[in-house]
Amino acid sequence: MNKQILKELRAILGKDSLLTAWEERACCSYDATGQSFLPDAVALPETTEQIAALVRLANEYRFPVIPRGAGSGATGGALPVKGGLVISFNRMRRILEIDTANMIAVVEPGLVTGELQAALKQHGLMYPPDPASLKFCSLGGNAAECAGGPSAVKYGVTRDYIIGLEAVLATGEIIKTGVRTEKGVVGYDLTRLLIGSEGTLALFTKLILRLLPLPAAKSTFLLSFSSLAEATKLVAEILSAGLLPCTLEYMDRTAIAAVRSRLSSPPAEDVAALLLVEFDGSTDEVAQQSKQFTAFVEQKNNCSLRQAANEEETTELWQARRSISPAVLSLRPHKIAEDVVVPRSNIPDLVAFLERLADELQLLILSFGHAGDGNIHVNIMLDKSNKEEHQRGLQAKERLFRFVLSLGGTLSGEHGIGITKAAFLPLEINPPTLELMWRLKQLFDPNGILNPGKVFPDLPVT
Amino acid sequence: MNKQILKELRAILGKDSLLTAWEERACCSYDATGQSFLPDAVALPETTEQIAALVRLANEYRFPVIPRGAGSGATGGALPVKGGLVISFNRMRRILEIDTANMIAVVEPGLVTGELQAALKQHGLMYPPDPASLKFCSLGGNAAECAGGPSAVKYGVTRDYIIGLEAVLATGEIIKTGVRTEKGVVGYDLTRLLIGSEGTLALFTKLILRLLPLPAAKSTFLLSFSSLAEATKLVAEILSAGLLPCTLEYMDRTAIAAVRSRLSSPPAEDVAALLLVEFDGSTDEVAQQSKQFTAFVEQKNNCSLRQAANEEETTELWQARRSISPAVLSLRPHKIAEDVVVPRSNIPDLVAFLERLADELQLLILSFGHAGDGNIHVNIMLDKSNKEEHQRGLQAKERLFRFVLSLGGTLSGEHGIGITKAAFLPLEINPPTLELMWRLKQLFDPNGILNPGKVFPDLPVT
Repeated sequence: MNKQILKELRAILGKDSLLTAWEERACCSYDATGQSFLPDAVALPETTEQIAALVRLANEYRFPVIPRGAGSGATGGALPVKGGLVISFNRMRRILEIDTANMIAVVEPGLVTGELQAALKQHGLMYPPDPASLKFCSLGGNAAECAGGPSAVKYGVTRDYIIGLEAVLATGEIIKTGVRTEKGVVGYDLTRLLIGSEGTLALFTKLILRLLPLPAAKSTFLLSFSSLAEATKLVAEILSAGLLPCTLEYMDRTAIAAVRSRLSSPPAEDVAALLLVEFDGSTDEVAQQSKQFTAFVEQKNNCSLRQAANEEETTELWQARRSISPAVLSLRPHKIAEDVVVPRSNIPDLVAFLERLADELQLLILSFGHAGDGNIHVNIMLDKSNKEEHQRGLQAKERLFRFVLSLGGTLSGEHGIGITKAAFLPLEINPPTLELMWRLKQLFDPNGILNPGKVFPDLPVT
Repeated sequence: MNKQILKELRAILGKDSLLTAWEERACCSYDATGQSFLPDAVALPETTEQIAALVRLANEYRFPVIPRGAGSGATGGALPVKGGLVISFNRMRRILEIDTANMIAVVEPGLVTGELQAALKQHGLMYPPDPASLKFCSLGGNAAECAGGPSAVKYGVTRDYIIGLEAVLATGEIIKTGVRTEKGVVGYDLTRLLIGSEGTLALFTKLILRLLPLPAAKSTFLLSFSSLAEATKLVAEILSAGLLPCTLEYMDRTAIAAVRSRLSSPPAEDVAALLLVEFDGSTDEVAQQSKQFTAFVEQKNNCSLRQAANEEETTELWQARRSISPAVLSLRPHKIAEDVVVPRSNIPDLVAFLERLADELQLLILSFGHAGDGNIHVNIMLDKSNKEEHQRGLQAKERLFRFVLSLGGTLSGEHGIGITKAAFLPLEINPPTLELMWRLKQLFDPNGILNPGKVFPDLPVT
């Protein structure tokens, strides 16, 4: 990035809002993939108009523009893989409006998801999507990847709550999409086209969110099974019975083993699966659902059931699930973390496949996650410095993807494609559909400046 | 349409599947707008490949292709306004699969919504969207317009239940979008871009639907108010209290007057608004919600409350709401029927505006509909043969739209734009956003063969 460009960037931003020192650029070089690519500069805009000006400049000089929320993405969406200018939303994190009567909020994209949730709580309101990273991830990043979380089984994902956008196109125009009402079908649904587009079609500058009333009560259960198949069968039965938990998470045998030493009361050695189940709603509703659920489970008579009596016990029941991410990296220094989705009824097939795969490729593979919607987190553990092991890991990843697709599943439920899955996109998306997506990309971003190298398969697998 | 085209159409379809007689074409000339445009021919394809071949031919000879479900649309989406070939989905109405374990169905677009719902009931499952026309409208049409219905307040609209599509592009390629799992974020969200695109971007040939368990119970309440403002205030309070009805419909004073003579037990003369409220769920849940709701309403002490004790009384409580559409056309021969949406808290403002507008323009205007999500049906009654009255009606429509937008609302919640609102699109969508939509249309349909004259403002207002 030459001096002329930097000078023009400073003219748009003011000199305190353009970072060029190595240390500053390094801070925007990484994300949760563990990979790192240094940008040429980092912009800290405060207004939509500044962003539009930055994008126009990028078109003029043809440098890449990489939108960055909190850098917590799991597939490389925020990585400046081809250098260029990172546009950080760190100074655009205001809550612009909370309309309690209509249960609508308008926010800037840099706002941390958990901060919004805390602010809404004061008003008795809730924004449901709850990615594991909610204490530090940004709503703009959530929108770019269409983030999910445990509550998706009851409440759905980011696309179900973002109803309108202000966005800067890759060509510099400022568009306004969607509505600030519950319903709206006027013109093409640009809002949902942009949600999940991973920063490749436009930069979000405002988000309009629909909210729900904050549930008054919650109950938490932990179920221990000696058979994973029994656990996943129960998941389908719970949902078919009309019970609608707001959490329905499972952990397989390997995941349990990984966290065992960290638990205050670890499960018995023969436990092959854990299910964490929660209900929320009014006090009466939760009491009624809990009663119905307990009766349902006891009648099955194939697991042991614990219900949390208070906040402290709730934290204890969540301990195993919450320990997985920190625990796994003590097993092996690196992981290939995938978030595949299979039809719920195929979860046992997937887990059996993973056990065979781990055996065959001599790898530690564990699975856990959102059993209720079939969105399974698979962690393939390895040491990347061992090239041969890394190769086996990549082989496992490809075989996992092919198996998931053979079950009618999909490569990602909430992480997106980014760079880590881009090479596999053609496994899932057929040629005319992929061609159409690529033509959309070219329509939106004729000079290819916006987050280049993402989603489409033109980079090596990592 | 010349003989050569007809010959090639017959070669694709077989001679029994191409209709060219006037009577046959007339059957595909109208929809619920009351307008009529004769197509040159009607195709009755049975396969995706036939549709792809038809579309390729249309590109070669540049004739319009108009997809048609059941012709029940309210904004002219299925009208062959520029002649051409109607592609009727009348012979593509199969349920291809009901996967009860994963609560997924795969259907053809010609299937009638109510027929699917009846079939699912046998499996204890539900497809929630319930447009008023559900006994005769098609799922393909619902997808094209993103149909809603009373249950949207609890369950959402068509876009929340269609998770994948097979579609034929305007250039003849067959694409497959989305997933058959609860979650999925792989590539751009073409599914939701196509839902609500009103037949202008692609022709749907298969729909993948997510389903819910059929609720075991339902309770129905009718509330009578002497003040509409009190009724709509209660709507917001009900939802903010965490009560989630599956029906939350209102009728204003004029709508009540219109149906009065048709009711077995008409409301008292001083009733200014009716609210129809239903809860569904498990028997326990419904009992609990009904109890909470009754206590909530009685504490307000500003309305009279009736609960249906049985199926017969439920039908009676629905009688007023269900009578509106047949009743209004006995008041005046024609109506301009709009489905605007305003923030819930602004419903009283909208209704007060409508009363002023009716006075000022000397028109009969009534409103009713989905108070829970602010999606209000406004019927401007008139006799179109009286040109001066028709002009006043069109004036009322434009003033309605401008007022709705001034409240932060939107022109359509579930009917779409079609031809009847196309001229007003620029009131809601700003120039760069509309320009982007138009460029999308050109990308998808370079020769403009697919449902021309719809959505974009190039036709006179009707």
